[in-house]
Amino acid sequence: MVEMRKPMPISEAVTKVMEFSKTGGTEFLSIEACDGRRLAEPIITGHPVPPFDKSPYDGFAFYSGDTEHASTEYSVEFEVVEHVGAGQVPKKILTKNQATRIMTGAQIPDGADCVAMFEICKEFERNGKAHISIKRTMKPDQNVIRKGSEIEQGIELVAKGTTINPGVKALLATFGYKHVHVVKKPVVGIFATGTELLDVGDELEPGKIRNSNAYMVMSQIKRAGGEPLYFGKLVDEFESSFESIKDKLESVDFLITTGGVSVGDFDLMPAIYEKLHAKVLFNKVAMRPGSVTTVATVGGKLLFGLSGNPSACYVGFELFVRPILQSYLFNEKPYLKRTQAILVDDFPKPNPFTRFVRGTIFIENGQVSVRLAGIDKSNVVTSLAFANGLMVLPGGTRGYTKGSQVDVLWLDDSQGQDTF
Amino acid sequence: MVEMRKPMPISEAVTKVMEFSKTGGTEFLSIEACDGRRLAEPIITGHPVPPFDKSPYDGFAFYSGDTEHASTEYSVEFEVVEHVGAGQVPKKILTKNQATRIMTGAQIPDGADCVAMFEICKEFERNGKAHISIKRTMKPDQNVIRKGSEIEQGIELVAKGTTINPGVKALLATFGYKHVHVVKKPVVGIFATGTELLDVGDELEPGKIRNSNAYMVMSQIKRAGGEPLYFGKLVDEFESSFESIKDKLESVDFLITTGGVSVGDFDLMPAIYEKLHAKVLFNKVAMRPGSVTTVATVGGKLLFGLSGNPSACYVGFELFVRPILQSYLFNEKPYLKRTQAILVDDFPKPNPFTRFVRGTIFIENGQVSVRLAGIDKSNVVTSLAFANGLMVLPGGTRGYTKGSQVDVLWLDDSQGQDTF
Repeated sequence: MVEMRKPMPISEAVTKVMEFSKTGGTEFLSIEACDGRRLAEPIITGHPVPPFDKSPYDGFAFYSGDTEHASTEYSVEFEVVEHVGAGQVPKKILTKNQATRIMTGAQIPDGADCVAMFEICKEFERNGKAHISIKRTMKPDQNVIRKGSEIEQGIELVAKGTTINPGVKALLATFGYKHVHVVKKPVVGIFATGTELLDVGDELEPGKIRNSNAYMVMSQIKRAGGEPLYFGKLVDEFESSFESIKDKLESVDFLITTGGVSVGDFDLMPAIYEKLHAKVLFNKVAMRPGSVTTVATVGGKLLFGLSGNPSACYVGFELFVRPILQSYLFNEKPYLKRTQAILVDDFPKPNPFTRFVRGTIFIENGQVSVRLAGIDKSNVVTSLAFANGLMVLPGGTRGYTKGSQVDVLWLDDSQGQDTF
Repeated sequence: MVEMRKPMPISEAVTKVMEFSKTGGTEFLSIEACDGRRLAEPIITGHPVPPFDKSPYDGFAFYSGDTEHASTEYSVEFEVVEHVGAGQVPKKILTKNQATRIMTGAQIPDGADCVAMFEICKEFERNGKAHISIKRTMKPDQNVIRKGSEIEQGIELVAKGTTINPGVKALLATFGYKHVHVVKKPVVGIFATGTELLDVGDELEPGKIRNSNAYMVMSQIKRAGGEPLYFGKLVDEFESSFESIKDKLESVDFLITTGGVSVGDFDLMPAIYEKLHAKVLFNKVAMRPGSVTTVATVGGKLLFGLSGNPSACYVGFELFVRPILQSYLFNEKPYLKRTQAILVDDFPKPNPFTRFVRGTIFIENGQVSVRLAGIDKSNVVTSLAFANGLMVLPGGTRGYTKGSQVDVLWLDDSQGQDTF
C-alpha cells in the first residue's frame, strides 16, 4: 500500500550529490558586465604597484642629503626648477639644492629621494625664480612610495573562483583587464508538477492554489549564481511527462522538478525515474521539512526532485542544489556558511529528525543571534520572506528553549564554507 | 597658499547629505524580472491562506463523530465514495460512515471534518466497493488545515521597500502578482578626473596609472541598487569640464566625480562648484581616508566629489552615497549595518581622526570578529578586494590591539539599519 523508504542521513545525502560535482565552462565578459560573477582566471599583477616612485602628498621633491644641515636656526634653500602634476612625467634631473613642485600621485623626479609637504616649506621668489626654504632635515625615502612597494609584478592577486565585487573590479581595471574570463552560469531547468497548480496570472479556482514554487526556485537559482529556465507545468499524464523531462534534460546543466516525488496516488516522478533508467541516489532524507527530496542521475546529469511543499522545496534547494551550483562556479567553499547562534525564541516542538527552521539572523553585542522568521509549519509560505537563515535543530531532542545555542546556515552569504 | 578647510564631524556630514533624501519613482516589472529589486507597493494577501480547508497528508477524510465508538476492540467502517487528488474538487457530500480518499493539499469534502492517515486505516473491499476500517477515535479538525488559518485575506504581508528575495517571490506568485511595482533604480552619473589616468584598455605609460576608481564606483553603485552611467574622464580644462558637468547633471539623479577635490594646483572641482553656484555642504570631513570628500547641491541635486585616492573614494562612496541611494530605494534602514566585533589583529597606528579600515568580517564561535583585509595604506587598492567590512576606529587613541572590541560596517549586507 504505502511504499516504505529508508531515510538517509543528511550529510550522507549531500555527499552523494557532491560526488557529481563538475566545474563549468568560461566566457569572456567586458569589465562593465562582470559584477557578481565568479572569476575563471586569477588576477595577475601585470606591473608593480605603484608602477613608478610616487608622491603621496602635494609638496616639493628633492635630495634629502641637501637638508643635512637644516635646523630651526638654519634654513636650507632650494630652487624650484619644475612643476609636476599627477600624470606628468618629470623632465628635469635634480642637482644640488634643486627641487620639483610635485602633486599627489605624481612621479618622483630623478635626483630626488624625498618629498616635503607644502606645510613645512616656505615659498619665496628670488631673481624672478621660485624658491623654497626648509628648516628641518629629511630622510631618504621620506614621503616616497617606491615602485613595487605595494605589490610586485607577476603576483597572483585574486584566485579564480572569487566573486567580482567592487574591490576586485578596481583590481581588474588597475591591471588592464578590459575583458575577463568568468565562469558560465549553470543553466538549471525547472518543471512544476501538481494538478492543483494555477499559474501566477490565473484567477483562483476551488481546490487550487497558484504555483509559487517555480518562481521561488527560479529566484533561488539566481541567488545561487545560476540561470533558471522554466519549462512550465508537466501535464498530468505519464507518457508526455516522461517525454518532456527526457527531452529537456538534454538542454540544461541541471534539472529540477517540484512536487510529485511522494508516494501519493498521483505522484508520477518515481515511475519517471525508473523509465529514464535514472540512478536514484536517495528518495528519503532524515530531515524536516523536505524528507521526500529525491535526487537521481541520468548519464552523469543530476535531476533534483524537490518536494511540492513550499518550505520543503526551499530547504531542499538550499541543502542539495545550491552547493553543486557553487561548485560548478569554481567556488571552493560551496556549502552554506554555518555558524553558531543564540536562539532568542522558544521552539518547543520535539524533533524526531533534524529540523531546518526558517530564522532571521541578527547581531546583538557582537554575538550572532537568531529568531523565528514566522510561524513554522512546513506549509506556511508567509515566513519564507523574512528568513535570512535556517536554524539546524538536530533530532532526538525535546525542543529548544530561548537562550539555547544552535547552528544557523546563512542564506544571503555568497562566500560559503568548505564543509557541509 | 594652502586653503584651510575646517573638518566636519562624520555624523554631521552624513546628516547634511541625508537632508536631501527623496524617494524614487516606480516601474512595473514582471515577476520573473524583479529579483533583488525593492518593492514599491506592499504585498497584500488577495485571498486567505489556505484558500480552502485542506489536508496536510494522504489519507481518508470523514466525519470525526462517526468514530465515537472506535477502539482497539471495535473497528468503525466507512465506505470510500470518492477519490480526490490535489487540485481536484470533491463532488460528493459525505453522509454517515462515508469517507473520501484524499491526497496531500486536496480540499476537504463537505461532511468531513478530519483526515486519518493511510497508516491507521485498513483498506478492504465489500460487494465490489472500497471500504476502510479504523480502530481509533478522531477529533474534529484533526489533520485539517482550515481556510485562512495561516493568514486572512487583505493583510499587508510584506512592506514596500523590502528587497525581493526568493521568499518574497513565492508570496508574489501565491497572491497573483504577475507584475509588481518596484522602485526605479537611481541613475548615478560618474566623471573621473586626473591627468594621470589611463583607460582600462590602455598600455601603461610613464607617470600614469589606469583609472580604477570609475569601475570600482560603478560596481559600488550596482551593489547599492543604482544604475551607473559613466561619462568618461573630464578633460583637463576648466571651461569644458564645467560645461560637461553642468550638462550631465540634468540627466542623472545623482552625480559623482572622482578626484580633483583637493587643494592641489590641478584640482578643478572647487572652482567648478563655485561657477555652478552649488552649495557646498562640506569639503573636509574628520575621517581617514576620504577627508577631502566634498558634497554639494545644485537645484536640490547632489553632486558627490569623491577623492581620487582609491581607498578614500571607496569609503566616501559607502558612507555618503550609499545611504542616499538606499533611501531613494524606499529602504527605511538606509545606513550600513554596524555591529560590534572583536579585532583579531593589531592596528598600532594612532588615529588623529576616525579611521575606516578595510576588514574581513568573520564569525567564530558565534562571535563577530574582524581581521585586516590587507596592508592599509590609503593608496593600496589590493586589499579592497578582500574587504567585506570597514572597521570604525575612533580618533584620539593610540591604536588598537588584538582582542579589542571595535565597530564594523557590513558592506555585503543589503538590509542596513536606521541610524548611522
